[in-house]
Amino acid sequence: MSDVLDRLATILEARKGASEDSSYVASLHAKGLNKILEKVGEEATETILAAKDAEVSGDCADLVYETADLWFHSLVMLSHLGETHEAVLLELARRFDMSGLEEKASRQNN
Amino acid sequence: MSDVLDRLATILEARKGASEDSSYVASLHAKGLNKILEKVGEEATETILAAKDAEVSGDCADLVYETADLWFHSLVMLSHLGETHEAVLLELARRFDMSGLEEKASRQNN
Amino acid sequence: MSDVLDRLATILEARKGASEDSSYVASLHAKGLNKILEKVGEEATETILAAKDAEVSGDCADLVYETADLWFHSLVMLSHLGETHEAVLLELARRFDMSGLEEKASRQNN
Amino acid sequence: MSDVLDRLATILEARKGASEDSSYVASLHAKGLNKILEKVGEEATETILAAKDAEVSGDCADLVYETADLWFHSLVMLSHLGETHEAVLLELARRFDMSGLEEKASRQNN
Repeated sequence: MSDVLDRLATILEARKGASEDSSYVASLHAKGLNKILEKVGEEATETILAAKDAEVSGDCADLVYETADLWFHSLVMLSHLGETHEAVLLELARRFDMSGLEEKASRQNN
Repeated sequence: MSDVLDRLATILEARKGASEDSSYVASLHAKGLNKILEKVGEEATETILAAKDAEVSGDCADLVYETADLWFHSLVMLSHLGETHEAVLLELARRFDMSGLEEKASRQNN
Repeated sequence: MSDVLDRLATILEARKGASEDSSYVASLHAKGLNKILEKVGEEATETILAAKDAEVSGDCADLVYETADLWFHSLVMLSHLGETHEAVLLELARRFDMSGLEEKASRQNN
Repeated sequence: MSDVLDRLATILEARKGASEDSSYVASLHAKGLNKILEKVGEEATETILAAKDAEVSGDCADLVYETADLWFHSLVMLSHLGETHEAVLLELARRFDMSGLEEKASRQNN
């Protein structure tokens, strides 16, 4: 599963230049940044609602689906602005390396 | 970079049971789901604002930082509800495999 | 203009019981709270985007339109949960009375 | 209650020019539009969470409080961009006059 974001980013980059009619991703880029950010906001709200419902029902299926939507549209946003998901993963790595005692310890043992 | 989410998820799981004082993640879990979801909503808004500013300035540094915050807090949310990031990646893989012509084509060539 | 929210709340209450086909408000109630809250989240995002664009363009027409959408859907939300806009206005009045030096001063002059 | 928004808007306008130290509203204006919009997004999320909790508990106290916060910060946003709450109320009046059968009927009886 580790490389799903890499593979997805490659696909999203390829579809950025596709015809609007053939691709949802291309149609988002054609509609512009505001439309993409509306989707990010929409999916954030739907994720929050799915999390509240999962807390009551114990069923996380919708939550997984909506979080996938949220991550997907944030990848489209990064691509639209010429930024990569690797930069985000690098920022996360930078953070947990700094405070990640477990991770540092495991590297010292190598 | 591919395994950053895996390594981060492992760290987050370990910190779930840490003392509140020693860990931001533990303090989020102690405050409960609403606090975690407030952070998801907050970071979604900050991501959207950073994207609008990046569109004007051409500088994506803040956008990368805020998107990292958004993904980080959505990982904490999944962990709080007993769900994994792998389920979200699996859902994304399922989607792009179904419609991912490029990806299918490349596998047929292997 | 002062009584627009009162008049709107009266109309919203009347449409709560209308047939789904004849009224957008009735269709929102029929779809349930999640749908109404998705709209609140959506309109909040669109308001934020319109405010960022207004800052650059100096034109607030979209901002006014999106803020109206946000207030409208928050009125539908209150109505759906059996709560009134008067309770919200009362809460706002309570707050600014407590710290509203200008307002207190004007009352002392009466 | 009808004139609460008018009175609040007058107070907000007066505090726009106050010293940052003495007024929360002045400090928001000093921090700039992004800070104000972060608060709009934050309060929208808190309103949505309060609505979900009210649905389960039947207690709307938090919902009223968070909706007041949302409306308050959207008034500060309008003021920051030189726009008025009357423009938003006028837009709402325009909409329900157009489709507001009840309201039209009552005017024809006058």
